[in-house]
Amino acid sequence: MSTEREAAEWLDAQDPLAPFRERFRLPADGTVYLDGNSLGMLPEASARRLQDVATREWGDGLIGSWYSGWLTMPQRVGDLLGERLLGAAPGQVAVCDSTTVNLYKLAVAALDARPGRDVVVADGNDFSTDRYVLQGLAAARGLTLRHLDTAEQAAPSAAAVAAAADDRTALVVLSHVDYRSAAVADMAAVTAAAHAAGGLVLWDLSHSAGVLPVRLDAAGADLAVGCTYKYLNAGPGAPAYLYVRREHQAELRQPIWGWFGQTDQFAMGPAYDPAPGVTRFLTGTPPVLGLALVEEGVRLLAEAGIDRLRGKGMALTALAVDLTDAWLAPLGFGLASPRDPAARGGHVSLSHPDAARLCGDLVRAARVVPDFRAPDRIRLGLAPLTTRYVDVWDAVDRLRRLAG
Amino acid sequence: MSTEREAAEWLDAQDPLAPFRERFRLPADGTVYLDGNSLGMLPEASARRLQDVATREWGDGLIGSWYSGWLTMPQRVGDLLGERLLGAAPGQVAVCDSTTVNLYKLAVAALDARPGRDVVVADGNDFSTDRYVLQGLAAARGLTLRHLDTAEQAAPSAAAVAAAADDRTALVVLSHVDYRSAAVADMAAVTAAAHAAGGLVLWDLSHSAGVLPVRLDAAGADLAVGCTYKYLNAGPGAPAYLYVRREHQAELRQPIWGWFGQTDQFAMGPAYDPAPGVTRFLTGTPPVLGLALVEEGVRLLAEAGIDRLRGKGMALTALAVDLTDAWLAPLGFGLASPRDPAARGGHVSLSHPDAARLCGDLVRAARVVPDFRAPDRIRLGLAPLTTRYVDVWDAVDRLRRLAG
Repeated sequence: MSTEREAAEWLDAQDPLAPFRERFRLPADGTVYLDGNSLGMLPEASARRLQDVATREWGDGLIGSWYSGWLTMPQRVGDLLGERLLGAAPGQVAVCDSTTVNLYKLAVAALDARPGRDVVVADGNDFSTDRYVLQGLAAARGLTLRHLDTAEQAAPSAAAVAAAADDRTALVVLSHVDYRSAAVADMAAVTAAAHAAGGLVLWDLSHSAGVLPVRLDAAGADLAVGCTYKYLNAGPGAPAYLYVRREHQAELRQPIWGWFGQTDQFAMGPAYDPAPGVTRFLTGTPPVLGLALVEEGVRLLAEAGIDRLRGKGMALTALAVDLTDAWLAPLGFGLASPRDPAARGGHVSLSHPDAARLCGDLVRAARVVPDFRAPDRIRLGLAPLTTRYVDVWDAVDRLRRLAG
Repeated sequence: MSTEREAAEWLDAQDPLAPFRERFRLPADGTVYLDGNSLGMLPEASARRLQDVATREWGDGLIGSWYSGWLTMPQRVGDLLGERLLGAAPGQVAVCDSTTVNLYKLAVAALDARPGRDVVVADGNDFSTDRYVLQGLAAARGLTLRHLDTAEQAAPSAAAVAAAADDRTALVVLSHVDYRSAAVADMAAVTAAAHAAGGLVLWDLSHSAGVLPVRLDAAGADLAVGCTYKYLNAGPGAPAYLYVRREHQAELRQPIWGWFGQTDQFAMGPAYDPAPGVTRFLTGTPPVLGLALVEEGVRLLAEAGIDRLRGKGMALTALAVDLTDAWLAPLGFGLASPRDPAARGGHVSLSHPDAARLCGDLVRAARVVPDFRAPDRIRLGLAPLTTRYVDVWDAVDRLRRLAG
């Protein structure tokens, strides 16, 4: 690929997704924002929707709005998300709680469904909250956490899972796309390996949803969770989601028995009786404003189409890798993401001993917002709806000047 | 008290809190909204704040806003809420998750801190989600749930707790104000009775916060949770809060180990190490928009002052009771709330065999929004910031016409 800026401009001119960028609130000072993998940008439609939900639905509709749409938002928005982005048929996804809480709920449900098995297989390099939730469960239930030995820029493999999982294994918990390297796991193959040992698999989709086609149903996935404030652009701390495969729903019970998971909720009967379907995985009162923002974010991605998003995403990361090879490798940068675009998610990770300082300088002196991950990683998050090819070019160009 | 409408008008004219009503979005058609005990009205300042957080903090500030205020919002808003409305010195309240999830977290923390004790004392007539959470924990941990035998219009008493709690009792879970009758429990006396047996107490403040002075520190309370979408006016599904008494914080650990409860969160170290203070009771990424709405709601109540709110609240419920005695009792209505204003929270509960139909008719034919609770209760929620004395008069007047 050419390293001329004109080449990047040409790619933008051909880009069928380019018009979507105008539907977001853009930085007034021309800042290049490459942190959509941490917090996605604000869709203009979401700002309008927020005002509408606040003033018309809450302010005017008041309590009546619970009965004209709010009560079933977790399932309705979950179905939209599931069908359009996660490869999940309706009735299996709900938007609720945080990723951390959902991970806890589904992990407990899975462990309870595999009595007598006392091992959880996980990735020792997974995102912190995933690791901590499992540590807490291991401490509380006397479980053994067995960590996969995954190479730096690789995703956990089916072979590694097959080697680690045995008849003691209740659950395998992995991220679909690694939060540091962006390496993509083979969901179907890994799931099959876990199933061969009799374990269930819980996928964290936080870094894959909205970036590449997730095929939960087709891959035979059992359980999944993920956040909505990254590529789904639902805003800071927006509610997360969970997926429970239909065939497991009757068997599984999550530990936090709340009124939104109850059959005939407003009868407020004496005994908890979990509702049928995915509803039983809900807990407390759903955050309506956050749910509306998830709906808006998913609609935008669905309109763009996940296959086009994936195509542009691979081209964006490929440009970043090419420019890194040409300009940054000679300056002591390493590529900390897979070389094969198909094996990467939506961001490119670079390693450099001075990563923390360089990230600070990029923000302050070069109006580029990357993402630093301790101890030595610079992540460039390339959200296909909002990132231009020239943004990638400008960011790497400014980074080489700062590091040169 | 006079039953003339002019008397109610006179009370409104004298009401020092009357101007606060103008700072809320009011129903355009003159609907009398008496359901602030279920969903509070929209403060105009909250609508503006929401737009500001969305466009300026999220849209313009993007990821940087996490480091210029968002990260510590759960604690900052918690301190404001604690100091101004809950009688809690700083460092003991955090705004996070839902009431259901917080109740679960704190109940597990308390149970783990009382090993060898296997009884939870609770109110069999408590709000459904509180009962269900405890049922789930009882099932998971082999606990016995011991229910207090509380009379219909009374709150759980210290004597009843003393009789029920013994050296097997790990935890007592009660609502400060009953969701049906609005009966107020004596927090200090009940807490002392539980402590005498060696148990901890967890209070649900959902129906008391913002209505009457809660004095957690002074009452010796151990733990508390509550929601923010009722009298705190933070909107549908806004985040809830939790209180952990300072002297318990080092000893207690909650079960959902997430990255927002971790020491040095962004180091993402290998092992979970719970942060000092109330921070360790956080789990996942906090819902920023909801937190901002909690802050706005609490600010309004704090400006009005909890003592003035309590004064007006008692006068509003007294008027409702007087009119009920005069007009509704002869029509077959019963008063299902305590007669003593000081023993009541912010709503008045009426019983009537046709309550469900009457509630529907009130909404459709009389533009009065009450709250129905199965099987036979009409709750009139009288939020002191937004309810006028004439609203009470009009509501009871229209109800007697419908039932007459």
